[in-house]
This record gives sequence, C-alpha cells and structure tokens, in this order.
Amino acid sequence: MNEKLSFASDYEKGAHPNILARMVETNIWKSAGYGLDDISESARNRIRKACGKENAAVAFLVGGTQTNAVMIDALLKSYQGVIAAETGHISVHEAGAIEANGHKVLALPHHYGKLSAAAVEKYLDDYYQDANHEHMVMPGMVYLSHPTEYGTLYAKAELQAFREVCDRYGISLYVDGARLAYALSCPENDVSLEDLAQLCDAFYIGGTKCGAMFGEAVVVPDPEKLPHLFTIIKQHGALLAKGRLLGIQFDELFRDDLYMRIGEPAMRAADRIRTALKEKGYRLCFESPTNQIFVIVEDNVLKQLGEKVEYGFWEKYDDEHTVIRLATDWGTTESETNALIDVL
Amino acid sequence: MNEKLSFASDYEKGAHPNILARMVETNIWKSAGYGLDDISESARNRIRKACGKENAAVAFLVGGTQTNAVMIDALLKSYQGVIAAETGHISVHEAGAIEANGHKVLALPHHYGKLSAAAVEKYLDDYYQDANHEHMVMPGMVYLSHPTEYGTLYAKAELQAFREVCDRYGISLYVDGARLAYALSCPENDVSLEDLAQLCDAFYIGGTKCGAMFGEAVVVPDPEKLPHLFTIIKQHGALLAKGRLLGIQFDELFRDDLYMRIGEPAMRAADRIRTALKEKGYRLCFESPTNQIFVIVEDNVLKQLGEKVEYGFWEKYDDEHTVIRLATDWGTTESETNALIDVL
Amino acid sequence: MNEKLSFASDYEKGAHPNILARMVETNIWKSAGYGLDDISESARNRIRKACGKENAAVAFLVGGTQTNAVMIDALLKSYQGVIAAETGHISVHEAGAIEANGHKVLALPHHYGKLSAAAVEKYLDDYYQDANHEHMVMPGMVYLSHPTEYGTLYAKAELQAFREVCDRYGISLYVDGARLAYALSCPENDVSLEDLAQLCDAFYIGGTKCGAMFGEAVVVPDPEKLPHLFTIIKQHGALLAKGRLLGIQFDELFRDDLYMRIGEPAMRAADRIRTALKEKGYRLCFESPTNQIFVIVEDNVLKQLGEKVEYGFWEKYDDEHTVIRLATDWGTTESETNALIDVL
Amino acid sequence: MNEKLSFASDYEKGAHPNILARMVETNIWKSAGYGLDDISESARNRIRKACGKENAAVAFLVGGTQTNAVMIDALLKSYQGVIAAETGHISVHEAGAIEANGHKVLALPHHYGKLSAAAVEKYLDDYYQDANHEHMVMPGMVYLSHPTEYGTLYAKAELQAFREVCDRYGISLYVDGARLAYALSCPENDVSLEDLAQLCDAFYIGGTKCGAMFGEAVVVPDPEKLPHLFTIIKQHGALLAKGRLLGIQFDELFRDDLYMRIGEPAMRAADRIRTALKEKGYRLCFESPTNQIFVIVEDNVLKQLGEKVEYGFWEKYDDEHTVIRLATDWGTTESETNALIDVL
Repeated sequence: MNEKLSFASDYEKGAHPNILARMVETNIWKSAGYGLDDISESARNRIRKACGKENAAVAFLVGGTQTNAVMIDALLKSYQGVIAAETGHISVHEAGAIEANGHKVLALPHHYGKLSAAAVEKYLDDYYQDANHEHMVMPGMVYLSHPTEYGTLYAKAELQAFREVCDRYGISLYVDGARLAYALSCPENDVSLEDLAQLCDAFYIGGTKCGAMFGEAVVVPDPEKLPHLFTIIKQHGALLAKGRLLGIQFDELFRDDLYMRIGEPAMRAADRIRTALKEKGYRLCFESPTNQIFVIVEDNVLKQLGEKVEYGFWEKYDDEHTVIRLATDWGTTESETNALIDVL
Repeated sequence: MNEKLSFASDYEKGAHPNILARMVETNIWKSAGYGLDDISESARNRIRKACGKENAAVAFLVGGTQTNAVMIDALLKSYQGVIAAETGHISVHEAGAIEANGHKVLALPHHYGKLSAAAVEKYLDDYYQDANHEHMVMPGMVYLSHPTEYGTLYAKAELQAFREVCDRYGISLYVDGARLAYALSCPENDVSLEDLAQLCDAFYIGGTKCGAMFGEAVVVPDPEKLPHLFTIIKQHGALLAKGRLLGIQFDELFRDDLYMRIGEPAMRAADRIRTALKEKGYRLCFESPTNQIFVIVEDNVLKQLGEKVEYGFWEKYDDEHTVIRLATDWGTTESETNALIDVL
Repeated sequence: MNEKLSFASDYEKGAHPNILARMVETNIWKSAGYGLDDISESARNRIRKACGKENAAVAFLVGGTQTNAVMIDALLKSYQGVIAAETGHISVHEAGAIEANGHKVLALPHHYGKLSAAAVEKYLDDYYQDANHEHMVMPGMVYLSHPTEYGTLYAKAELQAFREVCDRYGISLYVDGARLAYALSCPENDVSLEDLAQLCDAFYIGGTKCGAMFGEAVVVPDPEKLPHLFTIIKQHGALLAKGRLLGIQFDELFRDDLYMRIGEPAMRAADRIRTALKEKGYRLCFESPTNQIFVIVEDNVLKQLGEKVEYGFWEKYDDEHTVIRLATDWGTTESETNALIDVL
Repeated sequence: MNEKLSFASDYEKGAHPNILARMVETNIWKSAGYGLDDISESARNRIRKACGKENAAVAFLVGGTQTNAVMIDALLKSYQGVIAAETGHISVHEAGAIEANGHKVLALPHHYGKLSAAAVEKYLDDYYQDANHEHMVMPGMVYLSHPTEYGTLYAKAELQAFREVCDRYGISLYVDGARLAYALSCPENDVSLEDLAQLCDAFYIGGTKCGAMFGEAVVVPDPEKLPHLFTIIKQHGALLAKGRLLGIQFDELFRDDLYMRIGEPAMRAADRIRTALKEKGYRLCFESPTNQIFVIVEDNVLKQLGEKVEYGFWEKYDDEHTVIRLATDWGTTESETNALIDVL
C-alpha cells in the first residue's frame, strides 16, 4: 500500500465500488466464456443505447495498448499506415505494438497533443500528389485520442472536420478514449458518445483509467465494415476467457449512465488544484481542461514536493525547472485534494 | 447466472474467495502500475521460492493464448518455428496467434494429446539431414502442455527426455501450464514446479483455469536467456496497466502453497465421476487422470443429458455416438458432483 | 561450369536465346524503372491477350517464393490462412515465408501432390460447423500448383470444382504456375491460360523454370479485387528497380506464343526417358506426365549412376532403394537425353 | 527505348559490357542453384579480398529495399527498432517494408541526408534515461546510407564515431551502399571497402545502380554474429533460384577491381555538369560531391528544360522554383554530358 499522497497517475486504484460489489455477487456464478454470457450482452446493449446505435458491434478488451493494436490492425489493410500525432500514445509509448502488426505510424506534428484536420488533409494531398507515392506507406486511417495525452480536447466541429477529410480520402477515423470519462465530465467538452458513434469508424470507451479494474469497450457503429472482429481479437491474444469480468464492469459503468458522471470528482479536484496552483504562483505549462495538470516547477521546490506527494515526471523544462504531471481520478477525495493543496 | 448444472469447462466461475477478499481489501490502495508494486513483487518471490529458483524472472500476463504468443515470440528467432503436438492449443485454437508473430507451428502427431521426445528427435534429425533444410522452417523450440488438452500428463522422465533432445539441438523447451494446478493435485503426477523450473527454458503457471479470476504467471528460470521481457510483453499489448491485480491473485495463490492443493476438489470430483461413469456402463474415450473426462455417449442418451447438464462437445465418435468433455474445477462442490452423478 | 551430365533440376541454365539477344540489344537503352517502361507494357499486353483478359492486372516478380508470399498476403485478410496440400511448395520449402507475413498454411493431405476439391469442401464445412471455429484460423483462399511439385496435373474439371467450392465459401483461388510451360506443352493437359484466367482470382506464369533467366508473371484477371498491388509488391521488397529486365523476358516468352510451346523439348525428352526407364526395368514411383520423373532406384545402382549424372534426391523408399527425381527443361537437347539413356 | 536525353536516375540502363558478355558466355551452363555454384563462390572471394576480411559472409540479393528489409530484420531482435535519418530510404521510400517485418524506423533529423553520431548518442542517452523507456521501442541498430540519398558522404572519422556510439550501447551499425561505387570513385571520399568491413556489422555493396543489371552484395564481416542468413533470406522470398546470375555480376564487378573505378565516368560527368550549372548562373540546392546534383530551377526555365531532358523532380523550392535532381551513372558518355550542358 502506497502510504504517500499520490497524484502520479489515474490508474493506481482498483475499481468503482459498484463494480467490486457485482464481482463479489457473481463470483461463483458459472457462465459461458469469451463474452458470450448474459451480463456481457447486457453491457453491450447499455453501451449501444448510450451511443444511439442499436446495431453497433461492441467488444470488450483488457487494456489500451492492446485495444489500439487490435483495432488499428483490424481497420487497416496490411500495407497501410496510421496517421497520428507525434505525441500520440501509439507513436511513443506502446513499444512498437502497431509496427509489430506491420503498420507504420505516420507521425505528424501536434499542438498540445492535438492533430489538426487541415494538417492531415495536407499530408494526404501531398501523398497523392507525390509521383512516388506508391513507394511510400499508404495512409489508411487517422488515430486521435480524446482527451489527448496532454489532457486537451477536440471540439465536435474539429472531429467533424476530420470526418470530412477521412471521407474525402476513403480512410477510417478512430478515437482512443482511454480517458473518455474525463472528457464527458468536463464542462468544456461538447463531444458526446453519440457524436463519436456518428463520426468514427471505431472508438473505444476507456475503463482502466475511468473506474474499472481494467477493460476497454470498443464500439464499431457499423459492424459490416469490420467483420470477424471476434477472430481478430483472438488472433491478437486479446480475448479474455472469462469475458464476463469485462461485461460486469461495463454493465455497472453504464447502469444509470454512471460513466457520464464518473469523472466528476476528478474534474472538481483538478479545478481546485489548478486554482490553487495559480494562486500560489505556479506556472501551468499549458491549459488542459481535464484531469491532467502540467505544471512547471523549480527543481529545488520539486525536491521538497516529492517528499510529500507522488507526481508524474513529464519533461525537463530548462536547467532549473521541470514539468510535472498531476493526475486526478474518479476516486480522488476532497481530503486528498486538500492535502495536496496544503503541500503545494 | 447459469441456473443449469454445468461441467462444460473449467473457466466458468470467478475467483477463489481468498483472491476476492484481497481484491476488496486493497481496492482503493494506490500503487505503481505495470507490476512494479509491492504485492506483485511479493507474488513473484513466492513463485520463485516455490520453483526453487530465487533468480528466476516471473511475469504476469492476462490469458493463455496471449502468454503463448508472447513467450513463443520471445523464445524464437524471427525465422524459427515451434514444434507442437497437432492437438496443441497453439496448433488449433489460438486463431493463428503464433503465425501472426511470424512463426510456423510445426505440428507433429500426438498420442492422446502428448508428443514424444523420440518423435521430436526424429523430426530434428530428419530436418538437419535434409539437404534442403535451409529452405525449410528451422525448429527453434518445443511446446508442450501439462496437463495436455486431453487431460493427460507427462512423466518427469519424459520431460527429461525432451530436455536432452532440446539440449542436443540447442533449442528451447516451453511448457504451457494452463491447467497446471490439476497436474499438481493429481496423484499420478510426478512433475513438480521445481522440476519444471529445472527442465524448461520457460513455462507458465495457469491462473485463469486454476482459481484466479484471470492471469498466468510466466517463469523464466534463467532470465539472462530472455532479456527485455518487459518490453516484449508491452510490444504485444499484453502489459496490464494495473499489474497489481495480477500480483494480488498470484500472491494469494502462492500464500501457504494454496496452488499446490487448489486442484484437489477438482480431482476428487473427477474421480467420483469417472467411477460413476464406469459403474453406469459409459465408455471413457481414453484414460485421463486430471480434471477433464472424455466420455463416449449414445446420441439419444446425450440429448436427455443435455437438458439437465451443460457439457463440452468434443467430437463425433461415429454416426450414433458423440465424445463429450466433462470438466471439474477448483470450486466444484460435492453437491454439484452428486447432482451430476444422479443425472448420468 | 558443370561438366557432368545433369538432370538435377529445371533451373540450372540461363535463358532462352531470344531473351538473351533482346537483353543485349536493349542493354544501353534508358527507360523508366519499376515496370513503367514500354517493353514491360508490351509484355503485359501480350499476356493479357494470351489469357483472354484485356483488363487483367499483370505484374512481374523475380522468383517463386517471393511471388507466393506477396500474392497470398495480398489475397488474404490479416487474420486468414491459406489451404494447401501438405506437399505444396508453400507448406514445406519456403522457409516460413507465408507465416512471416502472419498467415497460417492450412495443410491438407495430398494425392501425388494434388488436393481434391471434395477434401477442401469438407474442410470448409467442418470449419464452419465447429462451434469453436472463431477460435481457429479462418480459411481465406486455396493454393494449388499446376503442375504440382510431383509433376502431376489438375484437369480443367477439377479446377472448376475448386472454383465452385471457393465461390460457395467466398474465398480466393490461386494457382502457382512455376512450371506452367510444362503443363501447357503436355498432351495430357487440358487447362489453358484462358481457363486459368477464367477460374482463378490470381495465378502466376512461371519464368524462372520455363526459359527466363528469372521472373514470374502474376495475372489478376479482375484487378478491382486487388487494388494497390504495386505498393504491396514494394512493401515486400519485391519490386525490381529495372523492371524492364522482367518486361523483356516476358515480352519474348509471349512473342509469337513462344511460351505455349517452349516446354516441348522437355516433354519429348521426358517421354523418351520414361520409356527407356521402363524398358530397362526401372520402377517409376508414380506416373507424372510432365517434365519431372520420379524413379525408384536400388542404392548400389544409384551409386554408379551418380558418378555419371546429377539427379535430384527425393526421398528414401526403403532400406535398399531411393526415389530420385530427373528433371528435363526447355533447353534439354537430344544428345543430353541420349547420354542419359545410355547411362541408365 | 527512351529517345530523349535522360539524367533522371542512375538505374535506367542495363549492365556493364563485361557482365553482359559473361552472361552470354555462361548462358547454357548448368550449375547448382541458390548461390552454391562456383562463379558465386569466386565472386564472394573477390569481395572478401577487397574488404580485407577473408572470413566474411557475403550474400547476393536482388534489390535495395529487399536487402534493407532482410538485413534489418536479421540484425534486430523482434522488439527492436532501427535509427535512421528521416530522409533515409527506409524511412520514406520503401512502402513500409521495415515495418512489415515488425520494426519501427526511429527517424532522426538529418543534415543534407546525414545523421550525426552525436545526435544518435543523445537519442540513446535520452532513451535509457527515460523512466518509461521500457514502454518505448528499443533502438537496436543504426542505419546509414553512403552516399546518402542527398549524394553526400560520411567521412571515415564520422563512421568511427558511429561505431563508438554503437559499441557503447551494444547495437549494430549497418550501411546501405546502394550507390557505393560513386563514393569509391569520388575524390572527397575517404571511406574504403576495408573501412566499412572494419566498422560495420553489415553493409551492402550496391550493384543495381553501379553497373550491374541488378543485385546487391551483403557483407557480414563477422558471420558468427549473424548465423542462418541463408534461411533468413529464403524466408523473406529473397533467395534467387539461379543465384549464379548474381555471382556472375559481382564476379565481373570485382575482377581487376573494376568496382573501385566503375563510378569514374559518373564523377567526371557530374563535375562537368556542376561547373556548367554554376557558370550558367544556376543555384545548387546544396553541395553534393557524388553523382547526384540538386539544382534550384525557375519554373518557366524548367518547362523548357523538360522538353529536352528527363530529370528527377525533387521538391518545390518556393512558388516559382523547383528543386530537380540530375543523376549521372557508370555509363554516362561525354556526348550525353555535352548534350545536357548545351540545353542547360
């Protein structure tokens, strides 16, 4: 048990109490494996309903890198690559999981973690106008994360612009929603689950960082575009034998729309922390409206801070300053937030 | 909830109560991710001790196909293949997960699910004597399962013979222990964890089918042979963010050697069922001493049976008979066994 | 230079004189790379005409294993496997080139190198009726070779039966024509280029063993089924920079229908050798009507024979006999054949 | 036949006359396949001698992308990536051939096509100092091209610095010598074949662009570091059946050290063209001492030029200017050069 106050990341705790209770309740039940059980079907239906797509395919996977690797391989032809921000999770922190399946990550510059549809369009234009483009990796999809790895958000209008570019070039749009709950609970966000289901070829609803023990829910609004997903998941070693465990978690996360508000404690805590930081004269590295806060801290201040609170190292700012990340989560308590503000 | 009596498989329930209790107890603890927490380290140490290898690398993965895919890719050079029984899990039921990483499964004939060291030796001899062997897939390892997919067991002397063949040809020996607890609790078994650690280059201790919610523990007795396993696991999308969850499960499974005896209820139930089947005049398809029973049933009898109990379809025996599989597990109760015997 | 008489294989010589002459004639010409030159276009057009498919895509590759690897990867989805005879070149002698691209070779029993449509149909039926088929590799195409590795031929009616099975299951049919010229020059053969173009999703016309220095011509009768073949070829490292070299060879092979009769010298020689073998009391291992002859030879006879002629070792027949392969080719002369018959 | 004057690339012609003559002379010889013939062995020995490494492994492949894909896969572990300039051939123009084998290209900024050892060292330092580096692709080798895609050259001292960095981190150094002959004939170059053999784990001697019809010769100075290269080549579909054809070409290229001076006509022509360009007031985009010249041309001038000479489009410089590439080769004649200078 970590005795020290920790804002190091948003995947340090277990699960929302409702999930744990249901795990306990159903523990000795017997049911079919691989997600073919009733609870998983109930969870899929709740998600279909929340997305406004009653025919959507919904599949449950265990973790984020796994989900990205499986879905990108499923959406691309074997000779295509995926366009992503150079800061995208798949570009940096997945140990080459995308390339392991044969696909190049076509990394474009970012603006605080975000790609722009205009930049993607220019990339695609340039590709097709290049006389040698058939010697280059054919772009087959766009990967976005919402919120991004920088805690920033796409506006609905921005996603619509990506959709238009993708349609113009006949490529897929995929959204990594590892921290989607923190977007959905953020006042600045104007992108709903229904919007994602309307605009994306596939996206995933993050569980691991958003109240589940583990698990991510993939949504494919038009399943005819992606047949044999079960086999693809199995081929990637990503099919959980006791699929019910994933069903339970998402059935609880989508019971009474819990997922839509599960991020609220994280938002309240993050807002209080941001305000306190500013009051205390800290500089934010950039504005991020969700549950991740990026602060520039003097190195000698940081040393003292580090004795009292776990934080995430982000990068060196200059010789005397460091950027750290503070992350709140669905379970952050008021007293934890108070304790952090006290030591800042 | 499955109301009907079920002996369909050994992965239909949740977890052993000790595991569930520890999950509940530690739920809101915060700890480092990816298995870098204290509980995971405690679990690794318990396993190292049980294997008699204090320097062994131990890594926790989520499921069996995933573990096989990761470890076979880790043990092989990119141009090598893996020798396995044609009935091996990797040969049939992993949807091509091994080939997805570029490796051919070199399938050899089986005897009730088992390979023989002599057959493997002959295969290797023939390979190296073939003038064209450099045009063929180079065998780089042997894959065994213990117990096998047929519930049968290797004797320690048989594993030693495999080790000798592997040493002669400089290739690796790997054991899939998805159901290892049922071997360890089986009186006929003479292969201990220490033996596996002595004889294998790597093996895994199955959790999913042996009392865990999910999870498999890979053991690499000599970790210098397999550096960078963490990165390899991550590259395969197989690194669980909240690694603690796996640590908890194996820390409980190896507390007070629980794993060594967790299969006993399954053994008791299976023995009673085997006896009852014989008494009632059923024919066993072949002798299997562990928790899986393969029975030849007349089709009209089977129809009635199927109304009262879930079983696993194995294969058609002839036009009027079917082979079914009945599987007991760590949690099979005496009353369930009684109920099954009543309806046989 | 190999001074000894040799019937060891059909790829020991250089190229047909017409090809060599054209190479010399055009050597210092400058032209666009990658097959975008006029000679390559002329060659493609000749092949389209010979196949009766004026819209077919035709692509030139360098070798057989390369062609199989590229085309199977192009025809399959990333999660599919290819059905082939267990004796098929891709099953045995391509060093895992198919698996290196992620695809399992689903090997079925053969009859003198041939698959039967009925066996493939049964395999597909069984696959889809298996309750666990989604855990198994999905068959996505059928691979045949014509002539086979045993020198045997498919009848047109047999290919039609394969086409029907493939259509019923929505999978592709591909023919490896590494030695196609020897089928086209064989009186027993009733399969024309036009038939192949009518029945296959893709096939290749072998050059390396049939009069070219090197090179194979892939034909895709309906190119809309296989877009972006250029990029796929490049991705596999299979795009020849000076594509003209391949164009020259196939332009000559298809000038005045040379390819249709280039195998005739091989057929004449093989027929004479078969007759002589029978007259001299040798036993043929099985009947093969094309340019490969499989003979059972006593080991002490073989020793003497081996001093005078190079042959191909096929396999041990029993303790005292060996099966050898004698291969004729497009350039086998009457005097070579006489010399061989003399030493038999 | 391309009637127009062409300086579009250095792979538009056939082969050096010596090679063609030897092809004709040996055409009907019969010999063992796959490079096991005497001529190939002679060629390997000549190359070993030229490199001063009599135990080196030498293997002949067909083309550059193929060679890079095979050798990078051979040199890397399955989970490693290759560091390359962002302008490296493997980064841009190989259609994802490196990723198709599962390896990420770790692209670093370039200086006129060159990487710097200092930048690579910093990259490696940063990688190992990053707390999350095990979640990132592990760098396993450095890829350089000499001359680079920009026609620039590494100094011997620069290569030595790369060697030191690679040794410090235990990774491999590989040089793509697609245009190596033009370095060896360039007065500015101080890197010999012996230096490459001393400094690299593997490199290749380009044939396709340097006088051969096709073909590249891989040199592995210490073959114990890279066993089973034959099988690896076969697995990649890169083993030429009639390997003799490659042997012939390199046997001629290395007879009497032809390769060391075969680039001289290209150098003479390029120097004259550079001088003429400067005299006529053209601006070179940057200095490149080998056979590729990069010129900034006004678009209206370019239009006229394009009617008389084929050139390579490089990139737009600004709204009114374009960068073009003029490439000379081993066979460029004085009259061609005169004709080009006349139309400039």
